[in-house]
Amino acid sequence: MTFTQRHLLGIEGLSKGELLFLLDTAESFREISEREVKKVPTLRGKTVINLFYEPSTRTRTSFEIAAKRLSADAINITASASSVAKGENLLDTARNLIAMRPAAIIIRHPSSGAPHFLARLVDCPVINAGDGTHEHPTQALLDMLTIRERKGHFDGLTVAIVGDILHSRVARSNLLALTTLGANVRLVGPPTLLPPEFRLWGAALHSDLRTGLGGADVVMALRLQHERQARNFFPSVEEYSRRFCITPVALAEAKADVLIMHPGPMNRGIEIDSRVADGPYSVILDQVTNGVAVRMALLYLLTMQGKKVQEEPMDQLREETPSRRYAARQ
Amino acid sequence: MTFTQRHLLGIEGLSKGELLFLLDTAESFREISEREVKKVPTLRGKTVINLFYEPSTRTRTSFEIAAKRLSADAINITASASSVAKGENLLDTARNLIAMRPAAIIIRHPSSGAPHFLARLVDCPVINAGDGTHEHPTQALLDMLTIRERKGHFDGLTVAIVGDILHSRVARSNLLALTTLGANVRLVGPPTLLPPEFRLWGAALHSDLRTGLGGADVVMALRLQHERQARNFFPSVEEYSRRFCITPVALAEAKADVLIMHPGPMNRGIEIDSRVADGPYSVILDQVTNGVAVRMALLYLLTMQGKKVQEEPMDQLREETPSRRYAARQ
Amino acid sequence: MTFTQRHLLGIEGLSKGELLFLLDTAESFREISEREVKKVPTLRGKTVINLFYEPSTRTRTSFEIAAKRLSADAINITASASSVAKGENLLDTARNLIAMRPAAIIIRHPSSGAPHFLARLVDCPVINAGDGTHEHPTQALLDMLTIRERKGHFDGLTVAIVGDILHSRVARSNLLALTTLGANVRLVGPPTLLPPEFRLWGAALHSDLRTGLGGADVVMALRLQHERQARNFFPSVEEYSRRFCITPVALAEAKADVLIMHPGPMNRGIEIDSRVADGPYSVILDQVTNGVAVRMALLYLLTMQGKKVQEEPMDQLREETPSRRYAARQ
Repeated sequence: MTFTQRHLLGIEGLSKGELLFLLDTAESFREISEREVKKVPTLRGKTVINLFYEPSTRTRTSFEIAAKRLSADAINITASASSVAKGENLLDTARNLIAMRPAAIIIRHPSSGAPHFLARLVDCPVINAGDGTHEHPTQALLDMLTIRERKGHFDGLTVAIVGDILHSRVARSNLLALTTLGANVRLVGPPTLLPPEFRLWGAALHSDLRTGLGGADVVMALRLQHERQARNFFPSVEEYSRRFCITPVALAEAKADVLIMHPGPMNRGIEIDSRVADGPYSVILDQVTNGVAVRMALLYLLTMQGKKVQEEPMDQLREETPSRRYAARQ
Repeated sequence: MTFTQRHLLGIEGLSKGELLFLLDTAESFREISEREVKKVPTLRGKTVINLFYEPSTRTRTSFEIAAKRLSADAINITASASSVAKGENLLDTARNLIAMRPAAIIIRHPSSGAPHFLARLVDCPVINAGDGTHEHPTQALLDMLTIRERKGHFDGLTVAIVGDILHSRVARSNLLALTTLGANVRLVGPPTLLPPEFRLWGAALHSDLRTGLGGADVVMALRLQHERQARNFFPSVEEYSRRFCITPVALAEAKADVLIMHPGPMNRGIEIDSRVADGPYSVILDQVTNGVAVRMALLYLLTMQGKKVQEEPMDQLREETPSRRYAARQ
Repeated sequence: MTFTQRHLLGIEGLSKGELLFLLDTAESFREISEREVKKVPTLRGKTVINLFYEPSTRTRTSFEIAAKRLSADAINITASASSVAKGENLLDTARNLIAMRPAAIIIRHPSSGAPHFLARLVDCPVINAGDGTHEHPTQALLDMLTIRERKGHFDGLTVAIVGDILHSRVARSNLLALTTLGANVRLVGPPTLLPPEFRLWGAALHSDLRTGLGGADVVMALRLQHERQARNFFPSVEEYSRRFCITPVALAEAKADVLIMHPGPMNRGIEIDSRVADGPYSVILDQVTNGVAVRMALLYLLTMQGKKVQEEPMDQLREETPSRRYAARQ
């Protein structure tokens, strides 16, 4: 199988085969970060641009580490989307960056669709690192990698995603990935934050936490955005927490070997209880580790596209040594 | 010819021979960014410091990419010039940086003359990345490279620079470069923004756009700084735009093969019409591409100075391979 | 001797032997920054994270340069400590970073003890780059390296530390290092800023500058934090300066070959007179140069710990060449 997508703009539109191929490739990159020398020569002499219009320590760092472990030059650009003509600004910024010949642009932007807009205009791979309330596909991929690592498969798994579904790009991307891969998805949260049209995508909606978690194989807590309260989506953080915080008691309804996931950063005691977050079934830190592997795999697949087919693509993942580099050029 | 300048503080003081030598060197670096592996070992083990006292995504990124494609370690420092004793602060900051043994310091500063002040105090090459309303020499060099790429020469070309001439370091550096290289320069803008003393440098002043553009080979639009309006240099942005925006109609006065340039970022619809900015004669993105080449050439020339003369300096620009690196040390 | 500390959290707890071993190691790294090619392969393929919760151009840059000259990948994270649950936030941030497999985390934090908190939770070396008013151990180490470079030893040296002792992590770390190494320490400043319990650590307290400097071998000026004035620790900056500024006159009381030190950034004319700061006995810039060497040594020692013992550890410090890298893997 080859991966023929030019960009990674979202999970939407990816086939089950493509998702599984991405996970397989990510799996082969995971080992690199466990080596003594965490570096392969794959992207040597290539420039990867992190263009972040929203603050993000975690995702930016993960992409930067992924790029550097592939030997790419990583350039961080922190931009403000608050200027007047946002669309034009992004257009010109992107064209200017392209003129400096990057191998890939990773973009996070508060406007849903910004990465798609960018991808139509530039002739370089674009990776969506989160766009508005739309998609966060690398988060979903690292979540899938983490689930498969523990459960071995997706077929028939019941996954409960709990929290502010309406505004969550993480929920959206995960819903798409999980249903494509054969899992059953339950979306759990206050009715004001549960868009009924998500039923069309195959999700079951629950506004009661206990029934939502009943028999679940995986529970994903979402981060509560405090600023939503001001807009009256829920009465108070205390009230939200009382009804939807993932506590050991609530979790008793789920399967005994339930996996606990959270995309971070966590509001401990609000959407997730520390006993759950730090408990034996939590894979929250595995998610972070897998994030580097998923991003390395994507940078590899997207920037190597259109290059001559290699007999052994994974050969690139061996540690860089001068003899290998020399041989590669003969 | 050898380049014996220790710093690049401005275009002022550079001879025609020096300017042409810089352009020739930059031309030889342009190709590196078009390679699959965009990296040469020239500055391996050298530290290049980007010391920016003003925000600048574009210029900082261009210098950072240039440094990294030369294998230098690039260190970004974003500083605030708002502290009390600016001069002292810059003095001590610079001395401290020098004590860490950089190969070059690139400085952008809101005070005209700051790079010159720095260069007198430190024994490391200083590159001016824009100082107040004074000079922006790497911008002028990339503009010259872009003009020569299309026109092949400068002699007798008519270049119209349009906008807020008074406050523009880009205009100043370009005026100096163009007149030294044999082009005719017209400065076009509202009379309040056209300093009459620029006539002494050989420029013709025009406060009417159409006569200013008449028969021009090259038109450079400058970015309008909105904050000037508050100081009454012009009545309103609308009025400015009505009189000085480069539109297809205004451009009809110029030569048929006129080049359109802009240092970016553009205010589309204010100083330049999108049909012009994106039209067939626009070389605005070529300017950005050439910016990386010009900055690579400067970093190469200034940091290699005083080093033993190499038989084939350009030999350094071949792609780094272990065999070459090994050979270079025998 | 081997260095068996897992972290560098403070000078407190380090033995004289350990301090001297650190200085010896730093000395062997100093020469690398004076080479044409300032890079050794020691930490190739390792990720070093600069986690700064307080702004710091100088210390961050020094650590970043140290990491890059060791061939590590340096990741800068600028964080805000102003969020609600600081402890929890730091905990989760650290765990997330660890999940990305760094070789070392360097932390600066406004809360005293934050690096110790971190070190208890993560299984990766932690280096304290300044925590609240507690310690700044790499500053003390570079100060010790600078003193030994000039004086050859510590035994019986009289070192006067002048300024806001109460709030200074630099004073605290230096007091500990100097007394451990056999120097006599005088703390000089306004009585409100001289904690009497420091006598227990072997320091003499002086609230008169002239007697404090009398016969001193080394004078360290501390930076005055202007914001302390608002809290009434001293009546005014002018008054402070009149009594405690290190001037040539005040310095006449010290030994003829007194060393002048300052951790920077200096308030010239407030805590130190420019004639002193820039005079023949000032080693202020040597401190900065030694800072890179100390940080390279620490990164080397802490990240190489637990690795198999090498016959010639310093062999790593030879310049990287392909033949050596190749040989190293056979």
